[in-house]
Amino acid sequence: MVKLTAQKTSSPEGGKRVVVENVEPEIDCGRFPIKRAVGEKVVVYADVFCDSHDAISARLLYRRDGESGWHHVKMQNVGNDRWKGEFIVEALGKHIYTVEGNVEPFLTLQRDLKRKLDAGHHVEADIQAGIQLMTKTVSECKQREAKNKLEEHLQKIENLNQTDPKKAASAALSLELAELMEAVSKKSLLVTYNKMLEVVVDRGRALFSAWYELFPRSCSITRGEHGTFKDLERMLPELSKMGFDVLYLPPIHPIGETNRRGRNNSPIREDDSPGSPWAIGSKEGGHKSVHPKLGTLEDLERLVGKAKNYNLEIALDLAFQCSPDHPYIKEHPEWFRWLPDGTIHHAENPPKKYEDVVPFNFETENWQALWEELRSIVVFWIRSGVKIFRVDNPHTKPFSLWEWLISEVKRDYPDVIFLSEAFTRPKVMYRLAKLGFTQSYTYFTWRNSKRELTDYLNELTKTEIKEYFRPIFWTNTPDILPEYLQHGGRAAFIIRLVLAATLSSNYGIYGPPYEFCVGESLPGREEYLNSEKYEIRHWDSDSPDGLRPLIARINRIRRENPTLQTTNNLSFYEINNDNILCYGKTSEDRSNTIMVAVSLDPFQSQSGLLKLPLNELGVDPAKPYLMHDLLGDGKYIWQGEANHVELNPHIMPAQIFRVRRMVRRESDFDYFM
Amino acid sequence: MVKLTAQKTSSPEGGKRVVVENVEPEIDCGRFPIKRAVGEKVVVYADVFCDSHDAISARLLYRRDGESGWHHVKMQNVGNDRWKGEFIVEALGKHIYTVEGNVEPFLTLQRDLKRKLDAGHHVEADIQAGIQLMTKTVSECKQREAKNKLEEHLQKIENLNQTDPKKAASAALSLELAELMEAVSKKSLLVTYNKMLEVVVDRGRALFSAWYELFPRSCSITRGEHGTFKDLERMLPELSKMGFDVLYLPPIHPIGETNRRGRNNSPIREDDSPGSPWAIGSKEGGHKSVHPKLGTLEDLERLVGKAKNYNLEIALDLAFQCSPDHPYIKEHPEWFRWLPDGTIHHAENPPKKYEDVVPFNFETENWQALWEELRSIVVFWIRSGVKIFRVDNPHTKPFSLWEWLISEVKRDYPDVIFLSEAFTRPKVMYRLAKLGFTQSYTYFTWRNSKRELTDYLNELTKTEIKEYFRPIFWTNTPDILPEYLQHGGRAAFIIRLVLAATLSSNYGIYGPPYEFCVGESLPGREEYLNSEKYEIRHWDSDSPDGLRPLIARINRIRRENPTLQTTNNLSFYEINNDNILCYGKTSEDRSNTIMVAVSLDPFQSQSGLLKLPLNELGVDPAKPYLMHDLLGDGKYIWQGEANHVELNPHIMPAQIFRVRRMVRRESDFDYFM
Repeated sequence: MVKLTAQKTSSPEGGKRVVVENVEPEIDCGRFPIKRAVGEKVVVYADVFCDSHDAISARLLYRRDGESGWHHVKMQNVGNDRWKGEFIVEALGKHIYTVEGNVEPFLTLQRDLKRKLDAGHHVEADIQAGIQLMTKTVSECKQREAKNKLEEHLQKIENLNQTDPKKAASAALSLELAELMEAVSKKSLLVTYNKMLEVVVDRGRALFSAWYELFPRSCSITRGEHGTFKDLERMLPELSKMGFDVLYLPPIHPIGETNRRGRNNSPIREDDSPGSPWAIGSKEGGHKSVHPKLGTLEDLERLVGKAKNYNLEIALDLAFQCSPDHPYIKEHPEWFRWLPDGTIHHAENPPKKYEDVVPFNFETENWQALWEELRSIVVFWIRSGVKIFRVDNPHTKPFSLWEWLISEVKRDYPDVIFLSEAFTRPKVMYRLAKLGFTQSYTYFTWRNSKRELTDYLNELTKTEIKEYFRPIFWTNTPDILPEYLQHGGRAAFIIRLVLAATLSSNYGIYGPPYEFCVGESLPGREEYLNSEKYEIRHWDSDSPDGLRPLIARINRIRRENPTLQTTNNLSFYEINNDNILCYGKTSEDRSNTIMVAVSLDPFQSQSGLLKLPLNELGVDPAKPYLMHDLLGDGKYIWQGEANHVELNPHIMPAQIFRVRRMVRRESDFDYFM
Repeated sequence: MVKLTAQKTSSPEGGKRVVVENVEPEIDCGRFPIKRAVGEKVVVYADVFCDSHDAISARLLYRRDGESGWHHVKMQNVGNDRWKGEFIVEALGKHIYTVEGNVEPFLTLQRDLKRKLDAGHHVEADIQAGIQLMTKTVSECKQREAKNKLEEHLQKIENLNQTDPKKAASAALSLELAELMEAVSKKSLLVTYNKMLEVVVDRGRALFSAWYELFPRSCSITRGEHGTFKDLERMLPELSKMGFDVLYLPPIHPIGETNRRGRNNSPIREDDSPGSPWAIGSKEGGHKSVHPKLGTLEDLERLVGKAKNYNLEIALDLAFQCSPDHPYIKEHPEWFRWLPDGTIHHAENPPKKYEDVVPFNFETENWQALWEELRSIVVFWIRSGVKIFRVDNPHTKPFSLWEWLISEVKRDYPDVIFLSEAFTRPKVMYRLAKLGFTQSYTYFTWRNSKRELTDYLNELTKTEIKEYFRPIFWTNTPDILPEYLQHGGRAAFIIRLVLAATLSSNYGIYGPPYEFCVGESLPGREEYLNSEKYEIRHWDSDSPDGLRPLIARINRIRRENPTLQTTNNLSFYEINNDNILCYGKTSEDRSNTIMVAVSLDPFQSQSGLLKLPLNELGVDPAKPYLMHDLLGDGKYIWQGEANHVELNPHIMPAQIFRVRRMVRRESDFDYFM
C-alpha cells in the first residue's frame, strides 16, 4: 500500500474542514488489495462531511499503478453523509483508488440563496458575494473555454442585477454554473483520504472457470499401462466438448522411491506401485522435471499448446515439498529439518505420519535462497506456457512467502492465476486470499443442508470477504469423496454438480470418478477406495450411465448466461420446504436472469411453494412471465410471486430456469425476453 | 497514534510466521483512541494464528503513555483463532496497548508428544527433541530462578528417560514446564501487531454523572431581580440533596447590546431584556469576563469552591462565538467575515438568521492566533477551578480545532471533561467524540417509542460506538422542550426522567422547568414559551407538585447501585406490550442487578408478561427470587422467567427493581442478596 503520512491537503490546518472516512471497500486498513477481473466494476463508498452547514463535493480518484495522473469520478451523496462512486477496471494488474472531498463555497452560496428566496428574504448581499466569488474564480482560471463560459455567466448576472435582482438571483442558481464553478474553482480546502487503496485486476478466467482434474497416468487406452501426455492429448476434444476450460493435473514430476506408498496408502508398496505424485523428486529430477513415464518437457509444452486450440488451459500443481529422494536434500540439506539421530524429519500431523514426504524447513537461515528457488519453479513452468497453478497446502508454508512470491510473479505475469488449496480454519483460508491467491478452495464440499449452504454463501458473497476471496466450488477431489456422494447415488452427483456450477462462477470436479458417479470409499472415511493417488486407474469413458451429456449441458448454460459468470450477484429465494434450495442471479441491466431450484434430497420427491422477489428481478407482478428450464427444456408460464415447484430426484433433482419477462401481450413465447 | 512502519519482529522475513490481525477495540485503524474511566476494564480481542500446525501464544501488551516497559497479559484462545486478554486502567491519561504472538516450539512438541502417546507411537525422538530444546533454553536463560527450575525439570526428564521413557514423556508434559518454557524461551519468532492503540482514561465522573442546568440570573429570591452567583450559593444544599453532581451554567459572560433579542427571541427588545447569554461580549469584556450583574470572578471562584463541599462541580459553557459588541471584533477583525458592503457577517442557517451572534471565520489566515486564544479561554477557567465544559455547537467549528484543543488541554489537565453539545447528523456527532470529547449529547431527547429506544440504545452500547462515544441523556434543554413533555403531563416527566437516569449512567435535566413539569411551548415548536434564554424567570422551589423528592430518590438509587453507574452493561428484556420498556443492568460479578420496567404511555395503565433472562442474571429458575422496587418500595417474590408487570401512570409509570437472589430457603427477605 502506498501510504501518505498525513491527510494530504492543500489547505492549512485551520482549513482542514472536510472529513473522508469509512471508505469501502478497504481490507484491513488498506493493508491488502481487493480483487476484480477485467471489465468488472469497483463501487466505492465513503463518509464525507464537513463542519457547519457548507455544501461539499466528493470525488473518487483512480489510476493504474504507475500511471501519473488520476481519473476523477464525481461521487453522489446517497444519504446519511455517505457518498458513492464507481469505475470499471479495463486493464490487468494493480490499480489504485482513493477519495477526496472539498468544501464548495459557491454551492453553499447557491443553496442559501435559494432558501432565502423561498423565504422572501433580501438577497442582494448574497448575489454580490456570488459575483465576487465568480470574479475571483475567473481571474484564477487557466482553462480557456471554461473561463469564457464563466465570464458569460458573470456578465449576465451582473447585467441583470442592475435592472432586476430577482432575475439575477435566478441566473445565479444555474446548474451549469454550479458544475462549472465546482470544476474550475481553486480547491483550497481539498482533503484527500489518508490511504491509497489497491485493486488487483485479473483476467476473466479468475472469475469464471470450470475445472476438470485428472491423473494423466490413468489416461492410457490400454488398461494397466501408464498414461502419457500424448494419451491426454487424445482426450482434449471430449473434455472441451463437455465445456471445461481448465484441465488441472496433479504433480507431473518424478516420484520418490523411499517409503513409497502402496495401494490405498498402505505403508507396504507393491512392485508396480506408481507412488503418490505429491512425493516429488527422485534421482530423475525434482520440481522442474517431468516424470519420464508421462513424457518429456516438450510433450507437456505440446499438450499446453494443443489444449489452447480447444479453449482449454493446463493447470499444474505447486506442491512445495519433497520425497526423501529429491535432489534438493543433497544439494541443500540446510533447507530441511534433521532429527537428533541424524535422520530427516518427515511430514507429520500427529498422530498422522507422511513418511514418503519431507517438508521444507522455512525457518532455515538460508530462507532467501529457498524462496528464490521456489519462485524459479513457478517461472520455469510459466515459460513452458502454464499460467494457472493449483497450490497444494499453502497454509503449511509461511504467509510471507506467498505474499512475496505471488506479487513477484504477477508483477511480470499479471495473467497468472494461483489457486489456494487450503482446507483449514477459516481465518487462515481468508488470510491466504488476502495475501494474493487468485482463487480459493472452500467448505462447499461439506455444506449440504439449506441452512449450511445459505449461511456459507451469504458469508462469501454478502460480507467484506467477497472483495478478496474468490471461491471455487469443488464437488470432490482425489482427497475427498464427501459422505453425501457416498450414499446419494446418481441424484446426489447431479445435485452437487448443479449447486457447484450455478452457486459459484468458478467450480471444479475431480472428473473421471465424478462422471461415473463413483461413490466407494474407504470404510468410515471420506477417502476414495483404490484412490488414484496410489495406483493407476482405468476409466471407461463410454459408460452409458455417465454424466457427460448433463455436464456438457450445464457448462453450456453457464457459457450462454452471463449472469452465471459471477458469484457475488447471488440471492436466495424463499420456499416453504427445507429440502429445496432456490436462488437466482440477475445481471445488473436485468437482461439475463437465472433462477435455480435444487432438491437437496437425492431420495424422495420434494415440492414447495416458492416466493420470487419479482421487483428485484424486474418482473411486473401483474403480467405473466416465462420460466424456461434450461436443464429439462420445459417451459412454464407463471404469474405473481408465489409458484409451485416439484422435483423428483429420479428424473431430475434440479431446474435451472431462465426468467423471461413479457414484452407484448401476445402468447407467443418469442415475445418473452 | 504511534506507528510502527512494519510488523515489528525479531525474526527474519522467513520466520514471520504468526499473524496478528483484526484487533478490537480499534477505532478507524487506530487513528482514534478508545475511552475508559479509571478502574474500568479494557478487553482486547485479536485474531492470532500461524501457518502449519504449530502451537502459538499471544500476549496483550499495555503501558501508560511515557512508561518505558510493557505490562504483559497472557491471552486466552476463545475459539476460531480469536484470542482474548484484558487489563484494568488505573491512572488518568493516555495508555497504549497492542498484541504480540509467538510460535511456541515447546508447546507444539508437548501437544504432538501427547497425541503420539495416545496413538501408541514411539516417542523417543520427541523426548530427545524436547531435551535438546530445554538444554538450549537453559543455556540462554538469564533469570536465575527460572533457570534453576528449568534445570530441575530437565534433569528429571533426562534421568527418567534412561530407565523409563514413558515416565520421561509424562514428565515432559508438565503444565508448569509448559508455562516456564513459554515464559523464558527466546522469542525468535515473535510478531507484534503493526499498530500501537490508544486508550484515553478519564476520571469516574466522565462515566457517571447527573447534571443540573440552570440560569444563575434566575436565581434571585426576589422576583424580577437579576440573580447572582451569591444567590446560587444559597441553592447548593438543595441541589446536592437532590443528588446531582454537576451544576451546569449557560455562558456567564457580558452580553452584547447590538441586535439584542427580546422576550421569546423577538427581534424587538424591551428596555429590561437581559439578552441571550450566548451573545457573548460587550464593552465590559468577552469570554474571560464575568457578567457584572452575576458578580465577579472571585464570586465565581467562591461558588466553585463551595459547590465542592456539596459534592457538586460547576460546569461552564464554551460558546466560541461573539456578540457584535465583543472586544475581539475590534482587536482581531481578521477573525471574522466581512460582507462586500463592509458589514460583519452574522450567524445564519438560511433562512434562519441570528443577528445577535457573529461567528468566527475559521478559514482566516490568522487561524493559529485564533486557536491559541480559544485554548487560552479554556485554561483561564481551569485556573479558576472549573474542570467541566459543555461545548456549544462544536460541529460548527473545524474538527481539527477540537482534536488539537482537547488534546492540548488534557495533556496538562487529564481530569478535564468536555461535553459535546452537537445536535446534528450522526456521523458528525460520532466524529466529534472520536476527536476527544469526553461526553456527548444524543438523540435520546427525541426517542420515545420502544422500537426507537431499543434501536438507539443498541447502537450506542452494542456497536463499536460504545468504545469512544459516551452518551449523556438530556430530558430537556433550554433549546428543546420535546413534544412528549408538552402533552404528557407529570407522568411524561417521570417517564423521561427514569429512562434518562437508568438507561444512561450520564444524564442531565434543564432543572427548574423540569422539576415543575413545565410543558408550555411556542405554538407548534419545541421551544419553551417565555424561554429563559431571553428573559429572567423566577422559579418557586417550594411548589408542592414538584418532582424533587422523586428526583432525589432516583439519584440515590443510582448512587447506591454500582450497576447503574455504567451504560454499556444495558440489556433489553422481552415483554409482550409495546407500551412497556423493560431492561436491566447487572454487574460483572452479578452482585448488583437492576431491572427497570417503564411505561411509555403517560395516559393509560399498561400491563404485560415479562420474560427475564434468568441465566444472564444468575438466577436459578427453580428458586424464588425477590424483586424489590426501589422507587415504590414494593417487594415481590417471583419465580421463573415469566412474570406480570402492571404500571399505572397516575400512580407511578415505572418500577426500578433490585433483583435479589435466594440464598437460603427461609422466607425471610434478609436471606435474599
